[in-house]
Amino acid sequence: MDYDRFFADRLSALRGEGAYRVFADLERQVGAFPKARNYRDGKVSDVTIWCNNDYLGMGMSDHVIGAMCEATKATGAGAGGTRNISGTNHYHVLLEQELADWHNKDSALLFTSGYVANMTTLMTLGGRIPDLVIFSDEKNHNSMIEGVRHSRAPKEIFKHNDVEDLDRRMAKYPKEHPKLVAFESVYSMDGDIAPLREIVDCAKAHNALTFLDEVHAVGMYGERGSGVAERDGVADEIDIIQATMGKAIGVIGGYIAGKADLIDFVRSFGNGFIFTTSLPPSVASGALASVRYLKDHNDLRLRHQERAATLKRRFTEANIPIIPSVSHIVPVLVGDAKLCKQASDMLLNDHGIYVQPINYPTVARGTERLRVTPTPLHTDADMDHLVDSFMEVWGRLGIQMAA
Amino acid sequence: MDYDRFFADRLSALRGEGAYRVFADLERQVGAFPKARNYRDGKVSDVTIWCNNDYLGMGMSDHVIGAMCEATKATGAGAGGTRNISGTNHYHVLLEQELADWHNKDSALLFTSGYVANMTTLMTLGGRIPDLVIFSDEKNHNSMIEGVRHSRAPKEIFKHNDVEDLDRRMAKYPKEHPKLVAFESVYSMDGDIAPLREIVDCAKAHNALTFLDEVHAVGMYGERGSGVAERDGVADEIDIIQATMGKAIGVIGGYIAGKADLIDFVRSFGNGFIFTTSLPPSVASGALASVRYLKDHNDLRLRHQERAATLKRRFTEANIPIIPSVSHIVPVLVGDAKLCKQASDMLLNDHGIYVQPINYPTVARGTERLRVTPTPLHTDADMDHLVDSFMEVWGRLGIQMAA
Ligand SMILES: Cc1ncc(COP(=O)(O)O)c(C=O)c1O
Ligand SMILES: Cc1ncc(COP(=O)(O)O)c(C=O)c1O
Repeated sequence: MDYDRFFADRLSALRGEGAYRVFADLERQVGAFPKARNYRDGKVSDVTIWCNNDYLGMGMSDHVIGAMCEATKATGAGAGGTRNISGTNHYHVLLEQELADWHNKDSALLFTSGYVANMTTLMTLGGRIPDLVIFSDEKNHNSMIEGVRHSRAPKEIFKHNDVEDLDRRMAKYPKEHPKLVAFESVYSMDGDIAPLREIVDCAKAHNALTFLDEVHAVGMYGERGSGVAERDGVADEIDIIQATMGKAIGVIGGYIAGKADLIDFVRSFGNGFIFTTSLPPSVASGALASVRYLKDHNDLRLRHQERAATLKRRFTEANIPIIPSVSHIVPVLVGDAKLCKQASDMLLNDHGIYVQPINYPTVARGTERLRVTPTPLHTDADMDHLVDSFMEVWGRLGIQMAA
Repeated sequence: MDYDRFFADRLSALRGEGAYRVFADLERQVGAFPKARNYRDGKVSDVTIWCNNDYLGMGMSDHVIGAMCEATKATGAGAGGTRNISGTNHYHVLLEQELADWHNKDSALLFTSGYVANMTTLMTLGGRIPDLVIFSDEKNHNSMIEGVRHSRAPKEIFKHNDVEDLDRRMAKYPKEHPKLVAFESVYSMDGDIAPLREIVDCAKAHNALTFLDEVHAVGMYGERGSGVAERDGVADEIDIIQATMGKAIGVIGGYIAGKADLIDFVRSFGNGFIFTTSLPPSVASGALASVRYLKDHNDLRLRHQERAATLKRRFTEANIPIIPSVSHIVPVLVGDAKLCKQASDMLLNDHGIYVQPINYPTVARGTERLRVTPTPLHTDADMDHLVDSFMEVWGRLGIQMAA
């Protein structure tokens, strides 16, 4: 086999499909966000970021930055080991307590990312609970799909947010049969939200465990900001709440929260938890400061929702076709991979606007889009500029407008 | 099914076997390392850490700490997105260039951890190179095992560091048949080192790709510190060098380095790379400062090796049974899970020495051990105290001494 040839061929096939990814090379700037520096071909220019998942700008807050630097200066750059072998830092312990309290659960467990949290937890439960069947929403994130797949547990993929389909599939198994339902609250590419109450009621009627990914919701929904489960009053019926500290919390890392023994079970048997260096004290300290702040600042959430509603209205008035979203996410439909990339390039080069094109495999072919994420730090003037630029590019490329 | 009962039962079975893990709750202290604070049952005491994988103390260096805080203050707490969607920071780009240069490769690719680097790379290659057979050393780390397993590629597990067995297994396949050999340089639990030259020659004779985990070697071996492959002059024949930034580099994160197209292939198809928030700028900046420092400071490596040699000599003179190790790792054999935990507890409670017991599944039953890792920051006085304490505890518990 000619390995070099193989890799080269696969990459040129990707290029041919317009699916080859080119990363922007950015430098966000504290104090200036959403403005940032963009490095490109040795040149540096100023751009406005419109596709960040630091949804609330917490990663730019002095509060979080201060907590990170303080911990780094006091206790060093890294944790120095796995959680079991000298790598549990006092900040991890405090953060796990804080997260458990936030979600009103007994315990929480940190992972190096939300990805690893999903994959490890689902692999551990699916691999170790005898006969467990996993019911997984068809639009679940790749990290859940991989966890389900690699657990080798039997699975049933139910139609997106379709409680009837879920119910029908669960009804095939006796009530006593072990089951787990895995789903998300906010689906990040369309911005729709799952009917949590209905899903939970259905799951509990079939005696299933519930596993909810609140990655795109923590910090942003509910009076104390712990997510859609809090907002909808169903948190107590969710057995495992999973989330990230890399989006609205503004740092990095992931976690699960739930009953003490369940969490201890994943702690004790989850390979992706056990066999890896733990998060630096700075990360745990920064996330701790962020969560404490978020608990008390519903004002930030109100401002965030206002910004999203305003932007949706502005796009609608300008006939820019947005995918209907009930969340803070504003997806603008293009529907073609190459056009989507072209639009993104023009916005960047001609208007200083950075919105990454979202193509297959992240979304289905034919639904390529620019996914816009306004934060509380984006001003009305930023929006004027954004909408004008979109209109210019849409006109120039002849992209389909809204009806 | 009664889920609560299931979890409780499994946890009590673990406790019965002596395999239930209790994490120390530590706070390392910049300036005082290896001394640290230990939190326990609401009390705080001082301990000396002897089992850190911050092997060179780089996580405690002002240099690295300064670089982290600087980046955090300038560009924020987190990256704010996945690498593709607004999460590529200029520090990532610089660090990937630096790592590629360090290993004398075209390109490098960052992952959130060494665990994810191994798993994702092996899953991607094993899952996508048609008919690839993976030859994996029987003592490979869990992250490689999972990557091989979940790639679903056919595999051959060869005897630890046994080139004849590897050769025999590869000979079963035609030369043209795609193959990959996955192995480590320093095996971290025994401290032995693979015969890289022989393995590489054998792999190349069978036209196999070579994948080398240098997690316990980067920073510590070779004139420029890039690992055992550099020291042994075989780096150019290793197709993929994988390592962590969480051990001798002192921060967190993982990476691979290799030829441009191979790395770009993993970048383009590796789910564990694509679908996750990227490392904070502070982490990339800290790791960058650390690698630049390590390249130029062979003195640190000499001091490290001297400390390890001295400790081995001291243990040997005291008849404390060490597992023969040719690296910086000093494993002390206990051979029983409960004794091992007891020894560790006594060292901690009565002598202020923290060495975590290493039990199954991390090592085979019957080979339970205390794995001691001297750093350049451990003094002769620290060693006096360590050896005296081990002798006292060994005597008290009647653990087998060296012949
Ligand atoms: C729904 C969902 N779950 C999990 C993850 C992974 O979280 P993390 O970025 O912390 O790895 C993501 C995206 O990054 C996501 O969109
Ligand atoms: C040999 C080996 N490879 C990979 C890893 C994983 O690296 P990381 O800690 O960066 O996840 C470890 C341990 O942590 C290891 O010992």
